Amino acid sequence: MSTIELIESAAERLKGNVQETPLLTSPFLDEIAGRRVFVKPECLQHTGSFKFRGAWSAISALSTEKRQRGVIAYSSGNHAQGVALASSKHGVASVIVMPSDAPQLKINNTKALGGEVVLYDRASESREEIGETLAAERSLTLIRPYDEPQVIAGQGTAGLEIARQAEELGVTEADVLICCGGGGLTSGIALALEKHAPALRARPCEPEGFDDVKRSLAAGQIQNNNAASGNICDAILTPQPGDITFPILLRLCGPGLSVTEEEALRAVAQAFLRLKIVLEPGGAVALASALFRKDDIAGDNVIVVASGGNTDPEVFDRALEFLT
Amino acid sequence: MSTIELIESAAERLKGNVQETPLLTSPFLDEIAGRRVFVKPECLQHTGSFKFRGAWSAISALSTEKRQRGVIAYSSGNHAQGVALASSKHGVASVIVMPSDAPQLKINNTKALGGEVVLYDRASESREEIGETLAAERSLTLIRPYDEPQVIAGQGTAGLEIARQAEELGVTEADVLICCGGGGLTSGIALALEKHAPALRARPCEPEGFDDVKRSLAAGQIQNNNAASGNICDAILTPQPGDITFPILLRLCGPGLSVTEEEALRAVAQAFLRLKIVLEPGGAVALASALFRKDDIAGDNVIVVASGGNTDPEVFDRALEFLT
Repeated sequence: MSTIELIESAAERLKGNVQETPLLTSPFLDEIAGRRVFVKPECLQHTGSFKFRGAWSAISALSTEKRQRGVIAYSSGNHAQGVALASSKHGVASVIVMPSDAPQLKINNTKALGGEVVLYDRASESREEIGETLAAERSLTLIRPYDEPQVIAGQGTAGLEIARQAEELGVTEADVLICCGGGGLTSGIALALEKHAPALRARPCEPEGFDDVKRSLAAGQIQNNNAASGNICDAILTPQPGDITFPILLRLCGPGLSVTEEEALRAVAQAFLRLKIVLEPGGAVALASALFRKDDIAGDNVIVVASGGNTDPEVFDRALEFLT
Repeated sequence: MSTIELIESAAERLKGNVQETPLLTSPFLDEIAGRRVFVKPECLQHTGSFKFRGAWSAISALSTEKRQRGVIAYSSGNHAQGVALASSKHGVASVIVMPSDAPQLKINNTKALGGEVVLYDRASESREEIGETLAAERSLTLIRPYDEPQVIAGQGTAGLEIARQAEELGVTEADVLICCGGGGLTSGIALALEKHAPALRARPCEPEGFDDVKRSLAAGQIQNNNAASGNICDAILTPQPGDITFPILLRLCGPGLSVTEEEALRAVAQAFLRLKIVLEPGGAVALASALFRKDDIAGDNVIVVASGGNTDPEVFDRALEFLT
């Protein structure tokens, strides 16, 4: 059961072990968006994405016995790196099941951070099945990427930070746009805001064509995506919202937003130019929503969670071409 | 007279108006450097460099009468943007004298932030003379880029943050490497560390061929550079250390370090890859020193001040080529 109490306990365990990320601003972004924009750069989190929060939360919550047997995770790359590093820092062995088309950088990093990488074919195999089979064979504890209460609790600590930071800045009412895959980050933040900043409203942001959460919220029940891959926002492509995350999203979130691949790349370019941060396209869909969907957003302020920055230089170059 | 008291007063005026930048880490950078590396990303400061601190400090310290007449600054670009935005936010008019070969981005930004830009030829004209003449003609207050006690005090607030953040991380002894032009940031940080973290030692970092501060420290008296331009680290090219900054540097700093243009670009690439921050080459010389001059650094920890990120995309692309 995911609750605010789990998030607050996770925050205690994460203290001193994760980066508290700031809220960044730029008058140039405010002008494009037509309102004040506050960006929480989770690309600056350890391993380059918010995923380290959930990984640390889950691994630090394990019993000594489970730690000794090791953990397993399946991930397109960011959860992989988060679990690999959080495991290494706890002295826990980790096996990471990754799609063979994940960015090479993420595969290499996961290995370098201490993870044992097992590759699978995203089009023909199910990572869930592979993960559960390996976990059973080797008595590993499976750390699910989002449908896992302790992972959601860890991601929710970003929401505790947003609630406090917004209050310090005098921002009492705003949409909080969040890059959304399976909904772990979005549901965790939504739970944290519900208690600590109820006038801040979480809203999931996705790539067009992979907007399962947006459509699920509109329908009131879980909807699937047609394809499993084929979008530059690879970090946040998931088949459908989670069984644990979706009821939280449905109860607490405002309507979803979706952007094109080009808009995501343009947001990567603006983040380079105006905030001096490196985003991957999937980590930029919330910023893209703030910049290019302004009529769908309410109020004088918007808060954006930029979820990750693990991009290959070639993709980044494509984004920078929009500046010339 | 630059003193710790001026820095502590400036910190009060800056509170809530500047970004407190975090200390970032990466196990990959630790491995290259052979010790733990903590990077303070002042590229995330408003206007993309630490210069906003000094500008806010100086403008907030002006009398009402002086504010009404306006201010003037000369700068290769980062001080320009800092003064332009800090002035706008105080409702003060600003004239900025910039070299005609400054990056176009910095010139455009300075205008967009509200500055009136006056261009000069870096090879044949003296920005100091132009600045002082215009200031006299229009009764403007000159905000010098580094040889100005209130500017040094503002930059020193980064040192107060370093002292506190290092203590929280349990880092009690370390070299603090600082990108150095005229010495405003380095002298301000050195003064802050002298009182609040005396076992942290400030050390200036410069581009080879423009290492006037390093040579001045070695000689015990002010030395000049032979050229005024012609290095990719344009943000930190100054003819010589300041008359106010140099005595502070001489009293408090360890030996200077210098790196090649290629090493600065390689550090830009590593900051992209491992920290997800955007640095300009001049803002990366301290990180380059940590990564590529490890035998010249003492101890298990090193703190790096990454001073700015206002780079044109073309220069950034050149840096990313070192990753392939």
